Amino acid sequence: MIIQCRKNISESQIDILAATCEGVVVKYDSNIFVVTPSAHKAVDAQFDNIIETSWVMDSDIQLSSRKFKADTRQIQIGKFTAGSAQTLLTVGPCGVEGEEMMEQTARLIVESGLTSIRAGAFKPRTSPYSFQGMGEDGLKLLAKMREKYGLSVVTEVRDSTHVQMVLDYADVIQIGAKAMYDHGILRACGRSQKPILIKRGFGTTLQEFVQAAEFVLSGGNPNVLLCERGIRTFETKSRFTLDLCGVAYLKEYTNLPVILDPSHAMGYAYGVPDLARACMAMGIDGLLIEVHPNPSVAKSDASQQLTHDAFRKLLESLKPIAAAVGRSIV
Amino acid sequence: MIIQCRKNISESQIDILAATCEGVVVKYDSNIFVVTPSAHKAVDAQFDNIIETSWVMDSDIQLSSRKFKADTRQIQIGKFTAGSAQTLLTVGPCGVEGEEMMEQTARLIVESGLTSIRAGAFKPRTSPYSFQGMGEDGLKLLAKMREKYGLSVVTEVRDSTHVQMVLDYADVIQIGAKAMYDHGILRACGRSQKPILIKRGFGTTLQEFVQAAEFVLSGGNPNVLLCERGIRTFETKSRFTLDLCGVAYLKEYTNLPVILDPSHAMGYAYGVPDLARACMAMGIDGLLIEVHPNPSVAKSDASQQLTHDAFRKLLESLKPIAAAVGRSIV
Amino acid sequence: MIIQCRKNISESQIDILAATCEGVVVKYDSNIFVVTPSAHKAVDAQFDNIIETSWVMDSDIQLSSRKFKADTRQIQIGKFTAGSAQTLLTVGPCGVEGEEMMEQTARLIVESGLTSIRAGAFKPRTSPYSFQGMGEDGLKLLAKMREKYGLSVVTEVRDSTHVQMVLDYADVIQIGAKAMYDHGILRACGRSQKPILIKRGFGTTLQEFVQAAEFVLSGGNPNVLLCERGIRTFETKSRFTLDLCGVAYLKEYTNLPVILDPSHAMGYAYGVPDLARACMAMGIDGLLIEVHPNPSVAKSDASQQLTHDAFRKLLESLKPIAAAVGRSIV
Amino acid sequence: MIIQCRKNISESQIDILAATCEGVVVKYDSNIFVVTPSAHKAVDAQFDNIIETSWVMDSDIQLSSRKFKADTRQIQIGKFTAGSAQTLLTVGPCGVEGEEMMEQTARLIVESGLTSIRAGAFKPRTSPYSFQGMGEDGLKLLAKMREKYGLSVVTEVRDSTHVQMVLDYADVIQIGAKAMYDHGILRACGRSQKPILIKRGFGTTLQEFVQAAEFVLSGGNPNVLLCERGIRTFETKSRFTLDLCGVAYLKEYTNLPVILDPSHAMGYAYGVPDLARACMAMGIDGLLIEVHPNPSVAKSDASQQLTHDAFRKLLESLKPIAAAVGRSIV
Repeated sequence: MIIQCRKNISESQIDILAATCEGVVVKYDSNIFVVTPSAHKAVDAQFDNIIETSWVMDSDIQLSSRKFKADTRQIQIGKFTAGSAQTLLTVGPCGVEGEEMMEQTARLIVESGLTSIRAGAFKPRTSPYSFQGMGEDGLKLLAKMREKYGLSVVTEVRDSTHVQMVLDYADVIQIGAKAMYDHGILRACGRSQKPILIKRGFGTTLQEFVQAAEFVLSGGNPNVLLCERGIRTFETKSRFTLDLCGVAYLKEYTNLPVILDPSHAMGYAYGVPDLARACMAMGIDGLLIEVHPNPSVAKSDASQQLTHDAFRKLLESLKPIAAAVGRSIV
Repeated sequence: MIIQCRKNISESQIDILAATCEGVVVKYDSNIFVVTPSAHKAVDAQFDNIIETSWVMDSDIQLSSRKFKADTRQIQIGKFTAGSAQTLLTVGPCGVEGEEMMEQTARLIVESGLTSIRAGAFKPRTSPYSFQGMGEDGLKLLAKMREKYGLSVVTEVRDSTHVQMVLDYADVIQIGAKAMYDHGILRACGRSQKPILIKRGFGTTLQEFVQAAEFVLSGGNPNVLLCERGIRTFETKSRFTLDLCGVAYLKEYTNLPVILDPSHAMGYAYGVPDLARACMAMGIDGLLIEVHPNPSVAKSDASQQLTHDAFRKLLESLKPIAAAVGRSIV
Repeated sequence: MIIQCRKNISESQIDILAATCEGVVVKYDSNIFVVTPSAHKAVDAQFDNIIETSWVMDSDIQLSSRKFKADTRQIQIGKFTAGSAQTLLTVGPCGVEGEEMMEQTARLIVESGLTSIRAGAFKPRTSPYSFQGMGEDGLKLLAKMREKYGLSVVTEVRDSTHVQMVLDYADVIQIGAKAMYDHGILRACGRSQKPILIKRGFGTTLQEFVQAAEFVLSGGNPNVLLCERGIRTFETKSRFTLDLCGVAYLKEYTNLPVILDPSHAMGYAYGVPDLARACMAMGIDGLLIEVHPNPSVAKSDASQQLTHDAFRKLLESLKPIAAAVGRSIV
Repeated sequence: MIIQCRKNISESQIDILAATCEGVVVKYDSNIFVVTPSAHKAVDAQFDNIIETSWVMDSDIQLSSRKFKADTRQIQIGKFTAGSAQTLLTVGPCGVEGEEMMEQTARLIVESGLTSIRAGAFKPRTSPYSFQGMGEDGLKLLAKMREKYGLSVVTEVRDSTHVQMVLDYADVIQIGAKAMYDHGILRACGRSQKPILIKRGFGTTLQEFVQAAEFVLSGGNPNVLLCERGIRTFETKSRFTLDLCGVAYLKEYTNLPVILDPSHAMGYAYGVPDLARACMAMGIDGLLIEVHPNPSVAKSDASQQLTHDAFRKLLESLKPIAAAVGRSIV
């Protein structure tokens, strides 16, 4: 359950409450909450005088539940406001590979009237013999694009050895599908106030996915976005299976903005535009699309990145769909 | 490979060719084809004089491949033409439960400007202790709605003991997800010329799914439509997982119209409208939506059927999306 | 719930009871049962005088539940008694391909001291361009092996168009993984008294799997065996994933003998012996192993069939494991 | 490919070779290897004089492939030698919960004639509101059991913030299913020489699983063991699905010892003994079994831990199976 404490209650009283009910103390704005395991359904009467209000919950989806906070969280990312009628379209290559291609990408974004760039500097490859990313040099190039073009930067943390570095450089910290159970990363992100984009693991249930957000939220950072990017199923014609039923669930039951990544789900450029249009029609809060000036020479994910021309065409086709569902693309 | 025979070749010559290369003889319009296992990549020179042209194929997706026939098959279903810019919206209850509710459904369809009704008379329930459908009485009610309201009828065959009966009553024979490997049904449908709607099994790969269509196509019936209705994955918050990556594959590689069934995938009414809008934005050929005058008393699939009011709202929201992708709803 | 009626109750009284509680009437030996949907938890007091005893059930796993019948069902198959300390080892090729190879197989079985042969005459292939089996000619060859060598015959029904034919020839009717939802087959098997071996569909939950058995059991045939043969998962190094956790569940909660098919699960001969030993150590009731005199020329499943030599070695290694778990191989 | 360099080649020459072919330099004993992406199939002739021998590989399963090293790696863990005819049976509670229960566990192990204890101090829970483990205090208790009872200690690292601490305390560092993609952990373990037990992620393919081992092996640590603990499938009656087909693959193609964890796969104590016997019959290198003095009060995984009595019975039943496959339990 979530317990909202009255104002002017001393920290020590709150700590006693938290200890008694095995709860976590969470501070948002000027309010203090104690969040207990959801198995707790009531609090001892001795605490009545320090409790403002409380919410009994069905599962450990608590701070992210619409039962606690009915409206989608508003989160500012550069010129984009998640939780409004805007849909973020953040694009870029799978990995930062050099300055020239990042320049080309940034110019595509600006010319398209968009506001955000995405690319990885730390690549979570499954083989030690593959390109592992440019590391801090890649982060520096991303920061350069932000300064030069006024773009917000979305980039990934791979493991907790460099989480602070990514927090320092990025506007949105992306926790990748393979890292989303990582307590080291989740807790570090919980201590920040920067927007955290958590990608669903490809073997992760929706329950576990949202509970990963609870680590960050209960750590004190209210700015979490969820990203569906495909789950692993028996089907092998596509790389993963984009779970739009899951998106319907997340929209219905959680207060977290939902971002979609059709590129990783499909794994092949040919299907990305159709899927992106499908996502847009669901009225989602954002889309990540992988684009590359020359996908055939990309050092990772070569098959799924769109050319710049293909992207421009996709964008044109997305606009009337966005309008049909009452949204604008930024 | 697919071998198109020259005109005026005798049946016995064609039979020798077919026997030599383990092929199946297929007649479409005035042409005769021999379709061999795709492992065959060439034909003996002795047959050169009877071959008009041929297609070497990568897999047993042959007659349904865009490599053989580039354009989507045009199939007429009442006033709807699959393979055109029209999208069929066929609606109705999970099962035929009685005349009054079928009347209400038919009136909803007519008032909505739609042309097709769907409902099951033979329900493929997984428990012998559940409602199994009205059988032939249900088919008769469907036929009555066709006559009274001019609607095309989509209904399901459960097993091959009653396939001929369903062929007699229906305009579109739906082969359900649990029956789509059934050679008895597939071969009977191959001998008909009626449109056959094959639903993907929830444990079925796309390769097997399209190969089921090949049974019907190679049996002599060119009128096959595919229906994605969700696959079984580890996620349990939704009943199944709608595989839109798979739809992107089917659209890219096959010449069969693609119909979507978001109701069965989601399993809960709340997510159906969002998913239906996503499907529509992919420019698909048709949508099946379960609606019921009073879902709470439905004898099957109670949780996933829309009320008539919810359906009307959904339809209004689908129209601008259809327009955005250049399609009209019939 | 399962309701056992008192002796000497008239059929019409029982029919009223069944109609009142939406139940199915099932006759075993000299007892009459009415099986209702498991949602029913009580019967109206007016029927008290015709009810001998009753069982309230949690789910539609009813007649197959250990709650109804605690001991594993004893089912006789030639010299083998399922439900005893014997484990059946039935072997043979994927498909009947001709008399000579069936002769070789039968001699292998007899020389190995075994009692049962298995092979398919109707192959449920997923492509219409593959070998579909020898049909009735195959059944006749199997019957010939039975007469000549005294072996029991296990063979598969593919769809309900030929279920009666298979019932006529076989000692054990195998309902394959792709046919196990087929009401036509299940109901025909329910009217027989022959042992029915139901294979789990590769996309089928354990709940649905056991409910398929309920169709046969509630049809009046008490002789059902379950066969786990691998489920479809994201892993592609093996053909399917043998679900031994599922076997543990079936052994714990159902009264049906459990047979294992490691050949189809693995899909490659190299892993079959190890898996067969694993199955045997679980104390299961039977094993199906695919063997072929010359696997490299097999018309189906070439990669997974054992040579006769490999099979002899496997059998020797199985004996001490069977002994370790208190079982004998027949 | 794997390139073994001649003795007495200078480091700078080897670095040039590695740079040229994008390879990683790996030192084992007195040999130096350069491991390139498996896409490389040949080396420029200029390097002929520094190459002793080389292996061309099909995939990035390289150092762990039997093609490179045919025999299973021998790895010493206390009195147990992996890669011999011994099978390790390491047992203990899910998490370290206090000294008294660890004492009880240690005495059970010693009385059973076993040599190793396992328990987690850092629990990778999916909810922030669950018990997260005792941390370093737990590690200290494990070390105390080692000193007092001469047991080897197997314990888990959760994320890279404490990997060095776990390396300091443990005899075997377990990388859990949720952490096995973590480059921070994998690289730290590669710099150690302690045995590393990598658990397969529940959504992880065998290819990715073995590639995780390649991170450690290519980092310079030859002592890696693999642990199968169940994958996530559509089946919900068990917690996960133990993939013994996958174990057959790992035994056939890799040189890494294979350990099995039936407790996590099943999720329920009732199935663990049957599954443990199945694993043992496959001739595997080790078994992890969760036992708890009083499972009903366990702070995590309460349902799947065996009582000490149940464990003693299991051990007695395992011995004849181990003997049947030529192995001894330590």
